[in-house]
Amino acid sequence: MSRNRLIYLPLGGAGEIGMNAYVYGYGEPGAERLIVVDLGVTFPDMDTTPGVNLIMPDISFLRENADRIEAIFITHAHEDHVGAVGRLWPDLRAPVYARAFTGHLAQIKMEEAGQDPSNVEIVGAWPQKVEAGPFKVSFLPISHSIPESAGLVIDAPAGRIVHTGDFKLDAEPGVGEPWDEALWREATAGRVRALVCDSTNVFSHHPGRSEAGLKQPIETFVAGAPHMVVATTFASNVARVKTLAEAGQAAGRSVCLLGRAMRRMIEAAVTTGIVDDFPTTVTPEDARDIPRENLMLIVTGSQGERRAASAQLARGKYLGLQMAEGDSFLFSSKTIPGNERGVIRIMNAFSEIGVDVVSEDTRYHVSGHANRPDLEKMHAVVDPECVIPMHGEHMHLREHAKLAEAGGRASLVVVNGAVCDLTRAVPHVVEHVEADRVYLDGDILIGALDGIVRDRIRLALNGHVIVNVILDGDEPLGDPWVEIMGLPETGKSRAALVDVLEADLGQFLMRAKSKTLRDDETLEDELKRIARKTAQAEIGKKPEVTVVVSRLE
Amino acid sequence: MSRNRLIYLPLGGAGEIGMNAYVYGYGEPGAERLIVVDLGVTFPDMDTTPGVNLIMPDISFLRENADRIEAIFITHAHEDHVGAVGRLWPDLRAPVYARAFTGHLAQIKMEEAGQDPSNVEIVGAWPQKVEAGPFKVSFLPISHSIPESAGLVIDAPAGRIVHTGDFKLDAEPGVGEPWDEALWREATAGRVRALVCDSTNVFSHHPGRSEAGLKQPIETFVAGAPHMVVATTFASNVARVKTLAEAGQAAGRSVCLLGRAMRRMIEAAVTTGIVDDFPTTVTPEDARDIPRENLMLIVTGSQGERRAASAQLARGKYLGLQMAEGDSFLFSSKTIPGNERGVIRIMNAFSEIGVDVVSEDTRYHVSGHANRPDLEKMHAVVDPECVIPMHGEHMHLREHAKLAEAGGRASLVVVNGAVCDLTRAVPHVVEHVEADRVYLDGDILIGALDGIVRDRIRLALNGHVIVNVILDGDEPLGDPWVEIMGLPETGKSRAALVDVLEADLGQFLMRAKSKTLRDDETLEDELKRIARKTAQAEIGKKPEVTVVVSRLE
Repeated sequence: MSRNRLIYLPLGGAGEIGMNAYVYGYGEPGAERLIVVDLGVTFPDMDTTPGVNLIMPDISFLRENADRIEAIFITHAHEDHVGAVGRLWPDLRAPVYARAFTGHLAQIKMEEAGQDPSNVEIVGAWPQKVEAGPFKVSFLPISHSIPESAGLVIDAPAGRIVHTGDFKLDAEPGVGEPWDEALWREATAGRVRALVCDSTNVFSHHPGRSEAGLKQPIETFVAGAPHMVVATTFASNVARVKTLAEAGQAAGRSVCLLGRAMRRMIEAAVTTGIVDDFPTTVTPEDARDIPRENLMLIVTGSQGERRAASAQLARGKYLGLQMAEGDSFLFSSKTIPGNERGVIRIMNAFSEIGVDVVSEDTRYHVSGHANRPDLEKMHAVVDPECVIPMHGEHMHLREHAKLAEAGGRASLVVVNGAVCDLTRAVPHVVEHVEADRVYLDGDILIGALDGIVRDRIRLALNGHVIVNVILDGDEPLGDPWVEIMGLPETGKSRAALVDVLEADLGQFLMRAKSKTLRDDETLEDELKRIARKTAQAEIGKKPEVTVVVSRLE
Repeated sequence: MSRNRLIYLPLGGAGEIGMNAYVYGYGEPGAERLIVVDLGVTFPDMDTTPGVNLIMPDISFLRENADRIEAIFITHAHEDHVGAVGRLWPDLRAPVYARAFTGHLAQIKMEEAGQDPSNVEIVGAWPQKVEAGPFKVSFLPISHSIPESAGLVIDAPAGRIVHTGDFKLDAEPGVGEPWDEALWREATAGRVRALVCDSTNVFSHHPGRSEAGLKQPIETFVAGAPHMVVATTFASNVARVKTLAEAGQAAGRSVCLLGRAMRRMIEAAVTTGIVDDFPTTVTPEDARDIPRENLMLIVTGSQGERRAASAQLARGKYLGLQMAEGDSFLFSSKTIPGNERGVIRIMNAFSEIGVDVVSEDTRYHVSGHANRPDLEKMHAVVDPECVIPMHGEHMHLREHAKLAEAGGRASLVVVNGAVCDLTRAVPHVVEHVEADRVYLDGDILIGALDGIVRDRIRLALNGHVIVNVILDGDEPLGDPWVEIMGLPETGKSRAALVDVLEADLGQFLMRAKSKTLRDDETLEDELKRIARKTAQAEIGKKPEVTVVVSRLE
């Protein structure tokens, strides 16, 4: 019995903000019974993942130990926590537990991936407990930028873990449960082995502000706008969408929601009883006939996503609606690092139309994550023996660990793939498992290290030359044939690049020895080398080269 | 004579921050004599310009009217003002005028592009004047984040234009001339037709801060660091580099400059007499032997550039020097929007080593551009009849125009390619000329609209399928041969993607009519269509397809 250990293993979210996936285990080393907390996605970018649809954690470890998995718990319905549940579930095949709103959205994810949504079981909040092997787990409500976010109280024979999930301390979050210190003190009373804690805003030194503080400024903004008002925020921030809609209503405007995600979230909130007083909205068809000074649109695309409603409006008409000079556009949001270019592109497009844009204005947005003083508060309320920072890039985790240590608690940076033994007096990383990323590319899951996306990046940087030669034994039939893609048509010699390539490759073939011509590999290598050398001389670039050798025999 | 007009035509920099290139003209419409102010570059990114080396303004208009160009003036030595002068000069072949430091660097640009550096003529500051056709132009010193920045006082028969160049109002810029209000009042006294004015910081509402205010905080930071200190800033910010070096010296540390641009800039400043008291530095070789608590490195790469010294140090050893736990790294800089990912990548890499990183801290950085109150001050000092905003994205230009109008002055947003007639009582856009971008791609200049880079982006997003068929008349010789690049090897059918493609394409060839097989274009279209359809079914992606048809006859 004394050999049993309690482990924590992040597979995503520890060393990045995105694709959260955390594993807890209890039992004999290598045979621990496991639970999974969250299965999220992260989003691709052109720099590192061009053409990829979604990025998910590599759950090889879980797949190989699927028989040890007792359950999956989803803390809240943000994509970086629930987005991969449908795609990855077939590898895990364990029951999924979530509260009503989160579970509703998790069920949709299951359906979209062709899985049975009844594998998602809706459970109530603390003090209700879910038994999962050696664990007893309960959902402890906490405020965040989406309704019904929850921390988890995880009881194992070796001690209690409190997993915060994403959270902020907001006494008036508008929609969803407020931060309830008394409840948290009661539910986490007694010895807590470890607090596994959100680190996102550890570098924000001021105390967090309440969602409630936005109501008046947003109302004033909407009331003061002379023409049409358009506002964007994260669709999942139901409280914010409601505040925006109510401001429109208060200003006597008809409110129209644009964007699939926006409508889906509000529907989910209404269906699950999270919201029962959302203002009446009009359809885009009806909105077209309403005088623009009486209209407010609430749209998707706060991060400048190219296909979202905000970007569509920046490019022209969307569902018959169009921006015009004198309209106002409010980003009730913060631009996530890396999304700046997309947001700025939209702002400039609106500027060209004559739309007044407000962005990055703290009067109209608050963060959904706990700032540094609020993290200290959480440490104090839960009063754990150690703090394990999660949900952050490495710099956030490291800073959070320093903060905990400054408060007199043990702490440790545990990154994706590191198995941390929480049974020891001081938590300790004892093993490492594979924990990279997989890409959903079209309909196929590919490994980040498969080289497929690396090849696409090389094509984007270097262009592509295709060399085609036909041989009959060691006899070239005709000249080599070259096609190029993504390269200049003419180079320094002022002749067509393909002609220069064909000439150089043809010369080589004429002089090549029979042995070279009969060996595919040598021939390909040589043709590649010559093509790259010629391209370098002609255009100053070394392209990717594909050689196709066809043999007639 | 009354038909003569005074025109302003931005070819770059008006609607973007980067690749500045402005044209002024005076004379009969369509036959104005021209001067060019600045010839800068802008930098590529993976989203829109993968594989491109540099982006420059499309100067087709100037090339087609090269006989009308009297002179080129360079206001200062930032890459976005001087970077294209060497590459574009052969199309213009007019004398280049600049002050000593700027001219020195412009001459290097000419040499690097294989042009005669003696085409760059060094001139003194106001009241010295350069005569250029109908224009008299003088360089009016002003403070900026590089030494020797200058505004231009441009006198034409139809009136005076003041072109600010990039500027801030700094009475103590450290290196380079301070803002001298009396000088500016004197030099711009009398009727000024138009102020063409930097707009970069129009959204910054607080008054600008002085470079001098950084000295004490930086000294305190360097003195308090326990181990090695590494600081990065723009190499061209000679004042900042000197402040950093002096702080190192004051703390008893040996100072080592890392990165080619860093050394080149300091050499240029010393050569041209801008700086005569730069602290002694040590070479990287010597630095290796100095105890790290006595060492300070000043390095390139404040924007996270992958090849710069900061990124090299984040990845491991660079010139024998290496970061270690307890070292300090200071970003004495601001991250330019769009560069966040690169900077964050470095910060996390340092976090993993245990280096303490300070970034985005206003104690250690001030902007080089005039904030909103300083723009108002400039309007008041020059007191022009109209203000034409330049050096900004569209939203900056629009906001700056509003600011000028709120101050009671006429203003107009003039974007790249718009010809503005400044002779009229109210400035007016009268024509448009082509003003896109050209890309330096390897060694070749290509047009932004040539489709070359668009093809590379498509390859990155969609992958590439190469289909090879050999025909003898209307008789396929063997099966089609398929190669893929950047695509998953297996799809939904669990067979190799190339096998499935070859099977489907082979079936088509077997059944195809003789007419189709004899017509290259139809055959290619059909094979492409089938390859894309099969790929869509197998992997959920429609790749780029290149078809190579070889005919034996």
